[in-house]
Amino acid sequence: MADKKESKKYIKTKNEQKNKTQNKNKNNSRVKKPTNNNVKNTKSPKSPVRIIPLGGLGEIGKNITLYEYEGDMILVDCGMSFPDEEMPGIDIVIPDFTYVLENKDKIKGLFVTHGHEDHIGAIPYLLKNFNVPIYATRLTVGLIEGKLKEHRLLESAKLNVVKAGSTVNAGKFSVQFIHVNHSIPDAVAFAIKTAGGTVVHMGDFKIDTTPIDDYMIDIPCLAELGKKGVLALLSDSTNAERGGYTASERLVGGSFSNLFRQAEGKRIIVATFSSNIHRIQQIIDEAYRCNRKVAVSGRSMLNVVSVAEELGYLRVPKDVLIEIEAIKNYTPGEIVVVTTGSQGEPLSALHRMAFSDHRQVEIAPGDMIIISATPIPGNEKLVTKVINELMKRGANVVYERMYDVHVSGHACQEELKLIMSIVKPKYFIPVHGEQKHLMKHAELAKLMGIEKENTVIAQNGSVIELTKKQVKCTEMVQAGRVMVDGLGVGDVGSIVLRDRKLLSDGGIIIVAVSIDAVTREIVAGPDIVSRGFIYMKESEELISEINNLVWDILDRCYYQNIRDWATIKNKIKDGVSKFLFTKTKRSPMVLPIIMEV
Amino acid sequence: MADKKESKKYIKTKNEQKNKTQNKNKNNSRVKKPTNNNVKNTKSPKSPVRIIPLGGLGEIGKNITLYEYEGDMILVDCGMSFPDEEMPGIDIVIPDFTYVLENKDKIKGLFVTHGHEDHIGAIPYLLKNFNVPIYATRLTVGLIEGKLKEHRLLESAKLNVVKAGSTVNAGKFSVQFIHVNHSIPDAVAFAIKTAGGTVVHMGDFKIDTTPIDDYMIDIPCLAELGKKGVLALLSDSTNAERGGYTASERLVGGSFSNLFRQAEGKRIIVATFSSNIHRIQQIIDEAYRCNRKVAVSGRSMLNVVSVAEELGYLRVPKDVLIEIEAIKNYTPGEIVVVTTGSQGEPLSALHRMAFSDHRQVEIAPGDMIIISATPIPGNEKLVTKVINELMKRGANVVYERMYDVHVSGHACQEELKLIMSIVKPKYFIPVHGEQKHLMKHAELAKLMGIEKENTVIAQNGSVIELTKKQVKCTEMVQAGRVMVDGLGVGDVGSIVLRDRKLLSDGGIIIVAVSIDAVTREIVAGPDIVSRGFIYMKESEELISEINNLVWDILDRCYYQNIRDWATIKNKIKDGVSKFLFTKTKRSPMVLPIIMEV
Repeated sequence: MADKKESKKYIKTKNEQKNKTQNKNKNNSRVKKPTNNNVKNTKSPKSPVRIIPLGGLGEIGKNITLYEYEGDMILVDCGMSFPDEEMPGIDIVIPDFTYVLENKDKIKGLFVTHGHEDHIGAIPYLLKNFNVPIYATRLTVGLIEGKLKEHRLLESAKLNVVKAGSTVNAGKFSVQFIHVNHSIPDAVAFAIKTAGGTVVHMGDFKIDTTPIDDYMIDIPCLAELGKKGVLALLSDSTNAERGGYTASERLVGGSFSNLFRQAEGKRIIVATFSSNIHRIQQIIDEAYRCNRKVAVSGRSMLNVVSVAEELGYLRVPKDVLIEIEAIKNYTPGEIVVVTTGSQGEPLSALHRMAFSDHRQVEIAPGDMIIISATPIPGNEKLVTKVINELMKRGANVVYERMYDVHVSGHACQEELKLIMSIVKPKYFIPVHGEQKHLMKHAELAKLMGIEKENTVIAQNGSVIELTKKQVKCTEMVQAGRVMVDGLGVGDVGSIVLRDRKLLSDGGIIIVAVSIDAVTREIVAGPDIVSRGFIYMKESEELISEINNLVWDILDRCYYQNIRDWATIKNKIKDGVSKFLFTKTKRSPMVLPIIMEV
Repeated sequence: MADKKESKKYIKTKNEQKNKTQNKNKNNSRVKKPTNNNVKNTKSPKSPVRIIPLGGLGEIGKNITLYEYEGDMILVDCGMSFPDEEMPGIDIVIPDFTYVLENKDKIKGLFVTHGHEDHIGAIPYLLKNFNVPIYATRLTVGLIEGKLKEHRLLESAKLNVVKAGSTVNAGKFSVQFIHVNHSIPDAVAFAIKTAGGTVVHMGDFKIDTTPIDDYMIDIPCLAELGKKGVLALLSDSTNAERGGYTASERLVGGSFSNLFRQAEGKRIIVATFSSNIHRIQQIIDEAYRCNRKVAVSGRSMLNVVSVAEELGYLRVPKDVLIEIEAIKNYTPGEIVVVTTGSQGEPLSALHRMAFSDHRQVEIAPGDMIIISATPIPGNEKLVTKVINELMKRGANVVYERMYDVHVSGHACQEELKLIMSIVKPKYFIPVHGEQKHLMKHAELAKLMGIEKENTVIAQNGSVIELTKKQVKCTEMVQAGRVMVDGLGVGDVGSIVLRDRKLLSDGGIIIVAVSIDAVTREIVAGPDIVSRGFIYMKESEELISEINNLVWDILDRCYYQNIRDWATIKNKIKDGVSKFLFTKTKRSPMVLPIIMEV
């Protein structure tokens, strides 16, 4: 029942996709012409293929993998991750690019599987140092463009749109794009072919037999590759601990349908990941069926909806989308708000609604709020806090497993096994996961008949060499995490983080004193200033005790003729620290400042 | 097959429990003699019963409830909670005792349901201000004693051991102790009786039809109360979101049995909550069956095992327990280590094992490590970190839902409904839970036929007045959280916490300068010192720019004849903050110190 024109546009997209193998690179001027390095012309077919994961192993996020064959290299993905509780004040974490930059003359291209932050988020930081050509599908390129625009890198970037089914040659590599299902449209896996063999790099995927865009993961293509012989499979371990199959995205549509019916006459607010365009499609479709208007809230949601609509990945019937400012012109029963904040993020639109800090949406009793996501590990408490606040305002909140309002984008055990069974790799390298996920995935490989010595659990920085005869980790190259704080990239290191941790645990006490350079007498101070330790106005007695103590220490130094400022500072630091610990059992940072007048 | 002597001791305990109603208060000198305030003698049977929850509502933990009837009061529980991520540096959180202390002349006793920290953890802090008599079961008293010893309060405390089935009179209240199942032995609910009616206060509970000590929750007693008429039920909402029944503790024993068989010849390490004595019992029993010795690691585990064994709650066959130092004298297949750290706590024994920091236990390939617990919300990442580390060391880690190695101690929906069905309260007050748990529990009450207006979702500090005619929240009294940091109780407030948060996000920049009091000229500095902002040695240029900026600001103040130190400090603060934000997009705390010489 969608608007005809839009619906046509969508069908065209689908046809395009269906015709993908025939009209490869034809209609899009951005597509780079294949270079003529035919893989069959390489001299030494026995050279090993080298795979160097630089991120995404032993962690969730920050995915980046380097492939090398006979001196040529390609990169796959370039993602970021979020800081953990041990990185206070850090905005994002990106891979250490040292090894990439050392080899930039060899690198022929960056191939990107899909548009999630953990696969594209670090691209601007790489491009600032190395303007590598990028190859990705249309939506992924659209999302990368948005990122590059923010960083003012779009003009110079070399972006190439590639359709699933196509192959791109890059040096001694030829890279085939294979459509997969995931929680974002236009995701692909790669068949990375060299004279040394074919490696299938799955990226993130699931097997959805009833996807919203009717475009299922290209199992026949994977099967064909398996038939021809695959040297190695790199596969997504995110859900390797979960048995069975991941449910189809379509299941969520059914739940929306039920919930929208229940909420008749009441406002509906749905929070989900902005990149989950098929989820948003289902919300829009259901809203249209129920004669509701859809308003979008949250910067990233607005951004993705606009890119997705423009590129034809989102079909919006005419007049369904309204501005968030316009919702006041409708009754609650005529409105659906789609919003960010499904992870309880403190600055997100849903969080602001929960804490009455959203300009257009004030939560009212009876509102139905659907949190169409599960909390990412570490976000549980944030999400719960938002749910509790929304409930206090009388809203009916549907969350987590109460109804089927979310399905994962990652393959569970049966899907992972299915992929192994059709790709039939000689070697297996589980990727995208913490140690526990990788090991669980390796266990599955064993079940599927891949010999234990042919499975490699590697680390970021491992150099894995594969020939038809054997696989081995030959060496380690530099890999790790680089922290981004404001405009600073990599300037916050372990010492700064340790200080932030100390400051946050106990605050700081500053002891400032001016001393005459000649007479060595105290001419001002000692002044005691504290932040984050105790409330100074209520602790005059303690402050005056510290003051007396510092006088005593300085007196003793004077009479002992100690003239070295560093020694005196240390004596103050130790003395005050010990005094405070005895007195309060706390350990604030003590920072003496001596000014020589 | 347990050692005979120990086994007898245990049976005696059970017999004691069976005879509980007959020999009430007879054998134990600690039991306070009933006072003679017979509830039937009160003049005005129509006075309302007042229930004032001071903690445990809208939160998990910190449970404390005040009951008032005709000027007499009793307290139920006095727990602590753990700080959340918004309370850096805080050790524990306790209830605000203001209202309790204002009424201490009225309070006849503190009744404690069980020995978990969220029910007993704040007792020492209360007793420092108010030496209230305490009534609890034997194990609970044992655990409270341990706490009071640490705080040097044991000598003066008035502890009374009460057996389940007994009744204690306290002012106009008579409090009946009713045995319940939970993840710690000797837990009770209370029937709190006054002339105004009977209130059933469930505490934490589950219904375990096959408990390890064969001592099931006293359903007949609850049914009897229900038959006689119950004014109100206060019930545990922790698992109100979960359907069905909580599995019996015995299920875990079966899993241990299977896993111990699988681990033949290999060392077994089991991490669990130290207070889960029945879990530890099952580990000991299984170890004994497999001819393994059991070593205990972790301070709280050692403490609880010793208290529980001494009081007869843990039956340990002879020669099964060995010192942790002695494990080196046995082969791996002869050893089970029971340890703390199931929540991934950074200083716990399991954490130290995972990071090779445990003196006696070094994880070796093949070790089977069973994490017999699920992560408490907020601890997921800590637990995962430990699991990953253990796996990296080659251990086989069994965790979460992989096998049934953990069951909850709290009732799920069907149990909650069952209790409502037999207690048949007129009014229902869900307790122990965040807003979402309380609301879910209230929904269940509605299903069970309790009218919506008879269910009260209250807050900490709500005064709930109940008569046979109506229930209402009449007023709010002071309630909240008090933070404990080292020896300081309540001296860390919102300003200090805000500063800690700011310091941890961006660090601090201190600008110190000495100025001549007469000439107003700079005589020393400005010195720039930073912590947690950037690594100073690598940022000489930035520091020198700040230095120049401060000179400029001071110069301008000098020529504008600004003589007020506060104004000058503000100008430095604003100037440096703005400069740094423009230059780095970061916001460290800027702290100017001016010393007048």
